Amino acid sequence: DCSAYLKLCNKNGHYKYILQRILSSSVSSHWPCPKRKYSYKNKECCLEEEVEFTQLAADYKAVNLGQGFPDFSPPSFVQEAFCKALNGGFSMHQYTRAFGHPNLVKILAKFFSRIVGREIDPMEDILVSVGAYQALFCTFQALIDEGDEVIIVEPFFDCYQPMVMMAGGTAVYVPLKPVCCGPVLSSADWVLSPEELASKFSPRTKAIVINTPNNPLGKVYQREELQMIADLCIKHDVICISDEVYEWLTYDGTKHVKIASLPGMWERTVTIGSAGKTFSATGWKVGWAMGSGHILKHLKTVHQNSVYHCATAAQEAVAVGFQREYDVFGTEESYFHQLPIHLHEKRLRLADCLKSVGLKPILPQGGYFMIADISNLNVDLTDPSTKDEPYDYRFVKWLIKEKGLATIPVSAFYSPEHRNEFQKYIRFCFVKEDTTLQAAEDILRQWSDSK
Amino acid sequence: DCSAYLKLCNKNGHYKYILQRILSSSVSSHWPCPKRKYSYKNKECCLEEEVEFTQLAADYKAVNLGQGFPDFSPPSFVQEAFCKALNGGFSMHQYTRAFGHPNLVKILAKFFSRIVGREIDPMEDILVSVGAYQALFCTFQALIDEGDEVIIVEPFFDCYQPMVMMAGGTAVYVPLKPVCCGPVLSSADWVLSPEELASKFSPRTKAIVINTPNNPLGKVYQREELQMIADLCIKHDVICISDEVYEWLTYDGTKHVKIASLPGMWERTVTIGSAGKTFSATGWKVGWAMGSGHILKHLKTVHQNSVYHCATAAQEAVAVGFQREYDVFGTEESYFHQLPIHLHEKRLRLADCLKSVGLKPILPQGGYFMIADISNLNVDLTDPSTKDEPYDYRFVKWLIKEKGLATIPVSAFYSPEHRNEFQKYIRFCFVKEDTTLQAAEDILRQWSDSK
Repeated sequence: DCSAYLKLCNKNGHYKYILQRILSSSVSSHWPCPKRKYSYKNKECCLEEEVEFTQLAADYKAVNLGQGFPDFSPPSFVQEAFCKALNGGFSMHQYTRAFGHPNLVKILAKFFSRIVGREIDPMEDILVSVGAYQALFCTFQALIDEGDEVIIVEPFFDCYQPMVMMAGGTAVYVPLKPVCCGPVLSSADWVLSPEELASKFSPRTKAIVINTPNNPLGKVYQREELQMIADLCIKHDVICISDEVYEWLTYDGTKHVKIASLPGMWERTVTIGSAGKTFSATGWKVGWAMGSGHILKHLKTVHQNSVYHCATAAQEAVAVGFQREYDVFGTEESYFHQLPIHLHEKRLRLADCLKSVGLKPILPQGGYFMIADISNLNVDLTDPSTKDEPYDYRFVKWLIKEKGLATIPVSAFYSPEHRNEFQKYIRFCFVKEDTTLQAAEDILRQWSDSK
Repeated sequence: DCSAYLKLCNKNGHYKYILQRILSSSVSSHWPCPKRKYSYKNKECCLEEEVEFTQLAADYKAVNLGQGFPDFSPPSFVQEAFCKALNGGFSMHQYTRAFGHPNLVKILAKFFSRIVGREIDPMEDILVSVGAYQALFCTFQALIDEGDEVIIVEPFFDCYQPMVMMAGGTAVYVPLKPVCCGPVLSSADWVLSPEELASKFSPRTKAIVINTPNNPLGKVYQREELQMIADLCIKHDVICISDEVYEWLTYDGTKHVKIASLPGMWERTVTIGSAGKTFSATGWKVGWAMGSGHILKHLKTVHQNSVYHCATAAQEAVAVGFQREYDVFGTEESYFHQLPIHLHEKRLRLADCLKSVGLKPILPQGGYFMIADISNLNVDLTDPSTKDEPYDYRFVKWLIKEKGLATIPVSAFYSPEHRNEFQKYIRFCFVKEDTTLQAAEDILRQWSDSK
């Protein structure tokens, strides 16, 4: 019977019931709130856009620095673990525990207990999901209700907005902006205004979404920036959804800090992780949400009613991978140590190339994307078929059609209301084989020489 | 802009807009209807029940004929295909097409075009999902709106009801009942009353869910029964959701018929399939929904916003499996031919054993479950801790605790309003190794001998 819960919903206008339930475990919890409404529109447009760019890249056989996945394989130790699992008897081919394969949740808890600096319970505090994407879906569905506001930091990974709307919430945007003085050379030069962020919190704010390292900018939030966000979350009793899928990919000594590790934040943070990004295996579709069992409980209910189980053998392979990384953590053998070194080279190479042809790259502190300012280029974008589109969309289409190189327009990572201010950047993905990067370089240099 | 769609929603009370959109493609479509509400309750109870039975079985180290998965491996040709895919270069480790790996949708379309007797479009008419479970989630989310009624045939796979409620719909139940005259020996003796079924259709009926072969009963609907259902669907302009995950498992010459192949039904049927059930690989989590592109389009939008991609290599392996089955279809080499022969033996063996100890099994025409009447047994069910529970729940707990054999109570497959009428059956799963079945037999015979 959910009448107590319903009363609570009604009394509070469906607002902040999750945190209240955390404080008062006597209230039974049910997903979703029966008063919840969907209010999502226009996603098919986004769908068509992505399909359009991907199709365009394919039609023109473009060199693809657009989509965010490696064009190389995961490390052999996880590949071998996957094959070994498949040859390891029937149980690896059948259902496993709905909320996460026991071997995987155990090692994730052990591994991240060390990182977060507290005991993480494998059975209570972790939900294994169909990639980080489904962890985000479960998080928004479980925690956001009709009328709730969710603060999203721009630029943002494009699924946050529709997922908030699907849950009945309203997205409230706050942009990272380039610092006003001096040249903008690094993603560290893009910052949140503490005053502007504070002004976005209202009595209806249920959650804030951050993404560190950030896609598409590559910003890695520093401890002081996270503490400023944490203080606001605590002051306003708000949940933090922290998307940390690129957590191992930081450069030039930049350190990734988990906001869940700051005082008072474990209880109100859901941290999203991805084996696909961690082990360069995006097609395995293994991710997780991690946080206090009182919050995770609601995510599990959503998970149980939408996919129930995740694939068994892939989870076993990821478990083996994390056990290996646990054993070699902090040494040069660690993949989490090696991959950023490997990508650091690619990042510098791409940045040099972009500069040499007149683009102005923003050097990312983390992740595997780099954005570049295209406003200096004199390109004739008079293609009448794209005349009503944002400048960066038109440039990206021109670059695919005329030069055979695929990238992504950065205004796609902004809300419609702020999109117009951010039309002068495009995003490059550099988690690519050197041959792919060389092919992109050849295209850019040839274009530069012909100007 | 979705104003035309919203107007349509409002005008019709959100009712039957899907079929109207199929007829009028000028109306833009958005998922979900902004007026939709969730209205789901009490799923956590179900969760706790399942957890309770599974935990109980584990605590008592019971022989497990409860959960519905094989305790053997999939055939070597798909296992090998999976390993080969994993060793087949980077692309098998990275994202594939969001709505289904191209190789898989192509062979599914080719394979099922032959079965359904019409050309199925691989890109339009199929959505690959995270198991049949997520295909069902996408189907209900995409097609059912607030106020819609969905007819569910009892006994039913237990996720249908919460999924209908999650989408804002109302479940309307119609039971399969044992024929009134003569002994009930087979699942074929359980039938729908055409009059009772017809009486359940109302102007608010959006869909009917059937499951053939049925879980838990094993009923395989005959062509005449399906035609009767199809006639009502067409008369009332209702969608048919046909869960056919056990489609290859039929016995004693019983033929599985796809309701989508009946005249006028392709346009209004979503057929759900499962690679897990088809290839004895429930842990791979590959399933699909199949139907007219005009309907599937809406499922794809839900899919894109909840999981986006499915795992790549598993899809490739399933594609290889279907290509192999396509090539050997109708021959003795076919796994779809061999598996039911294999299971037929286990089915007869289990039925004989159950009869010999005084239970009355209902011989299933299909699937891998068998229910048995326990009302003849004289068992002392005076355990005070279970006294308020249905009879079959109490019996199942007694059987686990006292005899070490795990099964599932059949009243769990009925709606709360009909549960009381169906408390005298328990479900056995026979897709188990002979050693497992032997262990179950030993337990039952020892018990019988001691009576």
